[in-house]
Amino acid sequence: MSRKALKLVTIGGGSSYTPELIEGFIKRKDQLPIKEIWLVDIPEGEEKLNIVGAMAKRMVKAAGLDWEIHLTLNRREALKDADFVSTQFRVGLMQARIKDERIPGSYGMLGQETNGAGGIFKAFRTVPVILDIVKDMKELCPNAWLINFTNPSGMITEAIVTYGKWKKVIGLCNVPVNAMISEPELIGKNLDELIYKFAGIDHFHWHKVFDNQGNEVTMDIINKMLGDGDAGLPKNIFDVPFYREQLEQMKMIPCGYHRYYYREEEMLKHSLDEFNNQGTRAQQVMQIEKELFELYKDPNLDYKPKQLAERGGAHYSDAACESIASIFADKRTHMVVSTVNNGSVPDLPTDHVVEVSAQLGATGAIPMAFGNFQPAERGWIQLMKNMELVIVQAAATGDYGLALQAFTMNPLIRSGNTAKRILDEMLIAHKNYLPQFADKIAELEKQGVTVKDEVAAHIDETMHVGVTE
Amino acid sequence: MSRKALKLVTIGGGSSYTPELIEGFIKRKDQLPIKEIWLVDIPEGEEKLNIVGAMAKRMVKAAGLDWEIHLTLNRREALKDADFVSTQFRVGLMQARIKDERIPGSYGMLGQETNGAGGIFKAFRTVPVILDIVKDMKELCPNAWLINFTNPSGMITEAIVTYGKWKKVIGLCNVPVNAMISEPELIGKNLDELIYKFAGIDHFHWHKVFDNQGNEVTMDIINKMLGDGDAGLPKNIFDVPFYREQLEQMKMIPCGYHRYYYREEEMLKHSLDEFNNQGTRAQQVMQIEKELFELYKDPNLDYKPKQLAERGGAHYSDAACESIASIFADKRTHMVVSTVNNGSVPDLPTDHVVEVSAQLGATGAIPMAFGNFQPAERGWIQLMKNMELVIVQAAATGDYGLALQAFTMNPLIRSGNTAKRILDEMLIAHKNYLPQFADKIAELEKQGVTVKDEVAAHIDETMHVGVTE
Amino acid sequence: MSRKALKLVTIGGGSSYTPELIEGFIKRKDQLPIKEIWLVDIPEGEEKLNIVGAMAKRMVKAAGLDWEIHLTLNRREALKDADFVSTQFRVGLMQARIKDERIPGSYGMLGQETNGAGGIFKAFRTVPVILDIVKDMKELCPNAWLINFTNPSGMITEAIVTYGKWKKVIGLCNVPVNAMISEPELIGKNLDELIYKFAGIDHFHWHKVFDNQGNEVTMDIINKMLGDGDAGLPKNIFDVPFYREQLEQMKMIPCGYHRYYYREEEMLKHSLDEFNNQGTRAQQVMQIEKELFELYKDPNLDYKPKQLAERGGAHYSDAACESIASIFADKRTHMVVSTVNNGSVPDLPTDHVVEVSAQLGATGAIPMAFGNFQPAERGWIQLMKNMELVIVQAAATGDYGLALQAFTMNPLIRSGNTAKRILDEMLIAHKNYLPQFADKIAELEKQGVTVKDEVAAHIDETMHVGVTE
Amino acid sequence: MSRKALKLVTIGGGSSYTPELIEGFIKRKDQLPIKEIWLVDIPEGEEKLNIVGAMAKRMVKAAGLDWEIHLTLNRREALKDADFVSTQFRVGLMQARIKDERIPGSYGMLGQETNGAGGIFKAFRTVPVILDIVKDMKELCPNAWLINFTNPSGMITEAIVTYGKWKKVIGLCNVPVNAMISEPELIGKNLDELIYKFAGIDHFHWHKVFDNQGNEVTMDIINKMLGDGDAGLPKNIFDVPFYREQLEQMKMIPCGYHRYYYREEEMLKHSLDEFNNQGTRAQQVMQIEKELFELYKDPNLDYKPKQLAERGGAHYSDAACESIASIFADKRTHMVVSTVNNGSVPDLPTDHVVEVSAQLGATGAIPMAFGNFQPAERGWIQLMKNMELVIVQAAATGDYGLALQAFTMNPLIRSGNTAKRILDEMLIAHKNYLPQFADKIAELEKQGVTVKDEVAAHIDETMHVGVTE
Repeated sequence: MSRKALKLVTIGGGSSYTPELIEGFIKRKDQLPIKEIWLVDIPEGEEKLNIVGAMAKRMVKAAGLDWEIHLTLNRREALKDADFVSTQFRVGLMQARIKDERIPGSYGMLGQETNGAGGIFKAFRTVPVILDIVKDMKELCPNAWLINFTNPSGMITEAIVTYGKWKKVIGLCNVPVNAMISEPELIGKNLDELIYKFAGIDHFHWHKVFDNQGNEVTMDIINKMLGDGDAGLPKNIFDVPFYREQLEQMKMIPCGYHRYYYREEEMLKHSLDEFNNQGTRAQQVMQIEKELFELYKDPNLDYKPKQLAERGGAHYSDAACESIASIFADKRTHMVVSTVNNGSVPDLPTDHVVEVSAQLGATGAIPMAFGNFQPAERGWIQLMKNMELVIVQAAATGDYGLALQAFTMNPLIRSGNTAKRILDEMLIAHKNYLPQFADKIAELEKQGVTVKDEVAAHIDETMHVGVTE
Repeated sequence: MSRKALKLVTIGGGSSYTPELIEGFIKRKDQLPIKEIWLVDIPEGEEKLNIVGAMAKRMVKAAGLDWEIHLTLNRREALKDADFVSTQFRVGLMQARIKDERIPGSYGMLGQETNGAGGIFKAFRTVPVILDIVKDMKELCPNAWLINFTNPSGMITEAIVTYGKWKKVIGLCNVPVNAMISEPELIGKNLDELIYKFAGIDHFHWHKVFDNQGNEVTMDIINKMLGDGDAGLPKNIFDVPFYREQLEQMKMIPCGYHRYYYREEEMLKHSLDEFNNQGTRAQQVMQIEKELFELYKDPNLDYKPKQLAERGGAHYSDAACESIASIFADKRTHMVVSTVNNGSVPDLPTDHVVEVSAQLGATGAIPMAFGNFQPAERGWIQLMKNMELVIVQAAATGDYGLALQAFTMNPLIRSGNTAKRILDEMLIAHKNYLPQFADKIAELEKQGVTVKDEVAAHIDETMHVGVTE
Repeated sequence: MSRKALKLVTIGGGSSYTPELIEGFIKRKDQLPIKEIWLVDIPEGEEKLNIVGAMAKRMVKAAGLDWEIHLTLNRREALKDADFVSTQFRVGLMQARIKDERIPGSYGMLGQETNGAGGIFKAFRTVPVILDIVKDMKELCPNAWLINFTNPSGMITEAIVTYGKWKKVIGLCNVPVNAMISEPELIGKNLDELIYKFAGIDHFHWHKVFDNQGNEVTMDIINKMLGDGDAGLPKNIFDVPFYREQLEQMKMIPCGYHRYYYREEEMLKHSLDEFNNQGTRAQQVMQIEKELFELYKDPNLDYKPKQLAERGGAHYSDAACESIASIFADKRTHMVVSTVNNGSVPDLPTDHVVEVSAQLGATGAIPMAFGNFQPAERGWIQLMKNMELVIVQAAATGDYGLALQAFTMNPLIRSGNTAKRILDEMLIAHKNYLPQFADKIAELEKQGVTVKDEVAAHIDETMHVGVTE
Repeated sequence: MSRKALKLVTIGGGSSYTPELIEGFIKRKDQLPIKEIWLVDIPEGEEKLNIVGAMAKRMVKAAGLDWEIHLTLNRREALKDADFVSTQFRVGLMQARIKDERIPGSYGMLGQETNGAGGIFKAFRTVPVILDIVKDMKELCPNAWLINFTNPSGMITEAIVTYGKWKKVIGLCNVPVNAMISEPELIGKNLDELIYKFAGIDHFHWHKVFDNQGNEVTMDIINKMLGDGDAGLPKNIFDVPFYREQLEQMKMIPCGYHRYYYREEEMLKHSLDEFNNQGTRAQQVMQIEKELFELYKDPNLDYKPKQLAERGGAHYSDAACESIASIFADKRTHMVVSTVNNGSVPDLPTDHVVEVSAQLGATGAIPMAFGNFQPAERGWIQLMKNMELVIVQAAATGDYGLALQAFTMNPLIRSGNTAKRILDEMLIAHKNYLPQFADKIAELEKQGVTVKDEVAAHIDETMHVGVTE
């Protein structure tokens, strides 16, 4: 990275999270000699981009900085000579997420953003777009770093590395960040008094914690979590406790998303309750978003409003800023990121992406070796990582057989006729964003597969909210 | 193995399958210089042992052979200086299997002999007994081969190798045998015109088939299977077809038990239908058994009655005879057996048990190297093998946390409160056969956990049928 | 393989070994419906091709067979629609081997056909030619099997698989064949009473032996070998015994070539004695060859003369015939061949070539899983296989740095100035056969590197013997 | 580690390096609340212990500190309740090293402290002692950290982990330290501007270097090294340059000891020159030591004299102090240490010791994942690590066959009669320190094996210098 003034680009810049990102940059103004920040979005997101962009300008100005904020719908113009590109877009907007949640839900299965059928389709929609961005970057900014926090973050990073053949990438997630914020408090410590060791894949990892005298405090945290309610759970995860006997055998702290796998029954019930009553998470989020954008319109608002923290993705943008600063300033920070394994999780293939404690500095992420898992966690992680590989391959190739294999492997999808019906219906529902599956979709349409009216109704209802994120 | 006259021992000798075993030995009389066959059973099985033992004697006599048939309840006497010990017992008798099926079924989950919660508990009950047998063998017949076809065969073989530290063992299963009987017919071939390559673990393996000109015929068989109904499915597996698109991507033939995982919805529905209507498989089997023993009582019957083939375990005993003959006569036969991996399935640990095509001869099984799986099958097999390791460790140690981990990993058990309830209730239900879990069971009893009346009723109903197998 | 009449092609058909090959086909006339045998050679080998070709015709006629024997210098004509292609050529003729032996020897280092610097250069010369043959085969006979017994056989097979991307290949070596001929005699057994388990790479493997009652007899053979002189050593390996204490720890039988590594001092001394006195092995062989071709000219000779057995390569051709018959007739023979590992030697990469006990049938070689080595053998084999990969990559790319890395890794080359001098001198000496290194060779010539007069003199001396093999 | 006042113990406290150690503690007085430092030695080292101990007291006093310096021959008294135990002893004193150098040298082979036959015997002598220390520590200070810088450091650490079953250990070496001192200068940088990535095993590792903008500068350093003479070579390694072509292919910087393997010819010649002329390294070192101890006797000397830097082991003791401070104060320093692999070097076994870039903090060393090597380095490191495992196993068990295997594997020993003779002679020569080989030694003595007079003479000559280190 040259010491020149920096050009930062954010794809999906009209997102409601952008103020957190701007705040993150402002906090690190002494570490980052920023010249330009480019917020990029698509035409459907232009209105939001303008609202949030204006607010970003007010924030920068209030901080007394001379950074240029560019708002654009022209991605290639933005990418030209960029130093860091961060991605936070949502292909198909929030409407697509509603479908990801409501189609499985309508069949009594889990509808969730990054897990189950919804997570698979989120990957299917996003992989073609990210590969397109990588293609542009190879041409326009071949030395830039790509900071991905578009979900499903681990799979997108895998696609960037394996199919995009792009090495300078960091995949981010706020789940470890949240854990490292809330857990120290539970045991009366500061984060810098603790040593965290994470290993696994995005949204499916475990960690161990030690104090600064080398004593393991994992069980102390677990005891507090089980006693006092959960720690650091993102807003989008329902709080059902893990089984004590299981954690005592495991001797590690699972991530919040493990609930979907370790307490499948309760999480499914909760998801279906939301489906049938207050609306799925996406529907709730759209309401929050609507309110946020109302706030952002206020020409006097020049700081991140506290309501933003109610979104499940809080701290994501701050992690992005920290990773940019760590790379640029060679800070050698401990962060938990998606990066090429290189042996750090020896139960998984060396050349594929894992999410792991790493030291982040000028050469990117250097993962810290975790060692082998015990059989239970090894079995889980090998299933989940291989499922990711199947999903990403299906997403990159449009192979329906692979898509069906992924649905069959997924522990949150009960395989069989209903699963296959959900797969087919989702292909139809998302067809505008699935060019790789065009032939199969045409075949399904010829067979008369359609999306249930129930789902279509929910989408219509929310169609007026054009949230970009 | 010295060329001396052979002493063969069968533990669980009162089983209804024993006539198949005797028939198998008679077929191989020229390869096996048998002197004595010892049929061993427990007091509860004495009546059956006497019936089936008398029939065995008639069969041997009808074949013009001078083999001694010994019936005994004294296992140690039988094991003394044995050459081959085969095991076909069922800890807890058929009543235990009914509980394995009806307790999960009563909660709407799959009740099955070797899969789901039932399979886990079958391992829990059997592992302590097999380790006890191994302990006796080390003392009484340290050079004998142990031919295990007690289910869950792969896990029992794993326990023998890993916790029993006994190397001379072959684990058998009739699933590959059935496939190799029925599939050649489907494509108009004889078995000896085909080359089979199996790899995986017991009840969870795949295979490829080639003709004797080296052409792969896997897809030809698949096409016939999908067109004409399934091939070689054991009687205890409901026939729902695999998805063509999935198999075309896989390019391998799954085993019959994959249905439970690839068509979970339909298999569960079928299981619950049986549960609610004609009775679970164990209940059906008890009826078949009852009829078989009536037949066996006939003092004129001196051959294996054809009705025996209706049991799901047909060909198991013949495979046992063939493996004994292959080892004794160094026949170097191709058989699919559970044995130490040694690299043949490189996606699984080298030192643990897999089920794989092997050459069976004087040194036991030499597995044939299969090479790596594609990601979908790799993920599945790594999950399943690690789950086996967790189950076997739980069975060997009585660790409740591990038992809960196994329940959580199992794809056929929906994790959460109901799963944990099933686990607890099954511990209570099988408590007489689970000495390793005694402390936990006492704790559960103190907490008032009991077996549902519904299940208890079903057991009572069948209590008068004291089937040993 | 279709049942049609077979077209067999042998590249390097003018070799003195061809009569063994013809004899081998004649022995298997009932298994192989041969129509045509094509013997291919290069112009320099035409005279020998005619001599040996005429003899081949006499042999076939004497056997009362109507096979067509074609002699040709047109490789592509021969390859057209071939069923089996065997390769037994020697790039650069015997003169090149003399250089391989005398250049290192002139610097006091080992000069040997397949080990040390000579083996590396034999690979450098041969890899481009074999890749060219594979290229032709893809076009002219894409369904043929390639049976390679051109040395260094393991590395050539590796090149065919890794750089040629050709899967239907079997690499052969007579070293295991010789062991399996001579060892059984040592302990008064027939081969079919023993079970052999080989693992390693070509010219660097170990084996264990068991009798047909499953008892290991490895140490019995070792004891006989150490007491009675070595068993089955090819004619080209000097007989110095292994250390008893080493073999007792190893509990395996090394191959004859291990002498170069386990008794480096004595083997080097012997090699230098030959260099200084009777002439290196190649020079001795040329004398034998000369005599053989004189014999072959006899128009009455219509069988393989016993003198051929004095060559180190005896049984190679017979192994080739047996492998062709095993594949064609799906014989499922136990053979020790170079083939893709697939996990059979789990200490080596799954996707690269090993030499291992395999079952040879219609689908080619199915390797038998050997399991992990102990650390000493694991260290050796990992060094040697990785050195092979470096050599083959250097041979395929012409990278001088890799060539130097290979020289440095090779345990039989003392690294440093002399080694580098040998490398450079051999590049010059073999320049006509090293197109891939053309740039480096030009650079060396510009620097004035030349071949020592001593070596040149020895080549001149033997220049009149135009042996093709 | 509790915050209490620290008790530090150094075994081999009479070493001439002790002043560097004391200086290192003094430099870190603010990080380490030291109460007591115990210097332990054996009776033969008592005189030196008193000299260097007195000097240590002067140094502490001059620094104005109230630390207690205890001198003792009672190891168990010292270990009682220790917090950190460092080891820097030399079993058999410097006389043993002279034998390690002169016996191989007398046969024309390399005599070197940690490589070749000498390194193997150093391990043979040291392993029993370190395992005895570990046994004491389990009893007397089970929570202490063991900081080993007794050579061969990697193998001793392996023995501690594998045979001692002791986890809290860090193995140190000054080779990486020296590289990180000298290389930055070469390219005009400070160490903190560079990112180092080391991987391999002790005395056999490679590294890559990057600047703080993420650009790789490995080749810049190599270019300077090849142009300007070597960087950071310890005093005990003769300076012969690596081949440029080899390094350009490797794209990594080898460690200084690689010279013995990459330039074997020149290093052997240099070693034999020393052997024949000025005396081997140990003999030179004894002279330096003698002078050092004369200096230390000066009652006015209260600081580390600059002459100490002439020893090859400079910076070792400072690294020990830094590692103690990093663990105690959870500094999370980057250090290159011998520690359990855990996947960081995926080409080596997960559970054995490697030397690798690690973050050193309260939980000890967390290795940074390096990823796979290219084939050339992979082959070397797999050979060398497995050789280490063989040596350590031989040292722990006294198995002569394993010792012979180790000699045979070692690239710096030409296998054969001479090698075996050296092995036998060294067993005799070191018999007082090789209790594990007692039976074999007795057998060799019965056979009349003796140490050459030449070597004995050299030992006698130096016998009056009772150096402890």
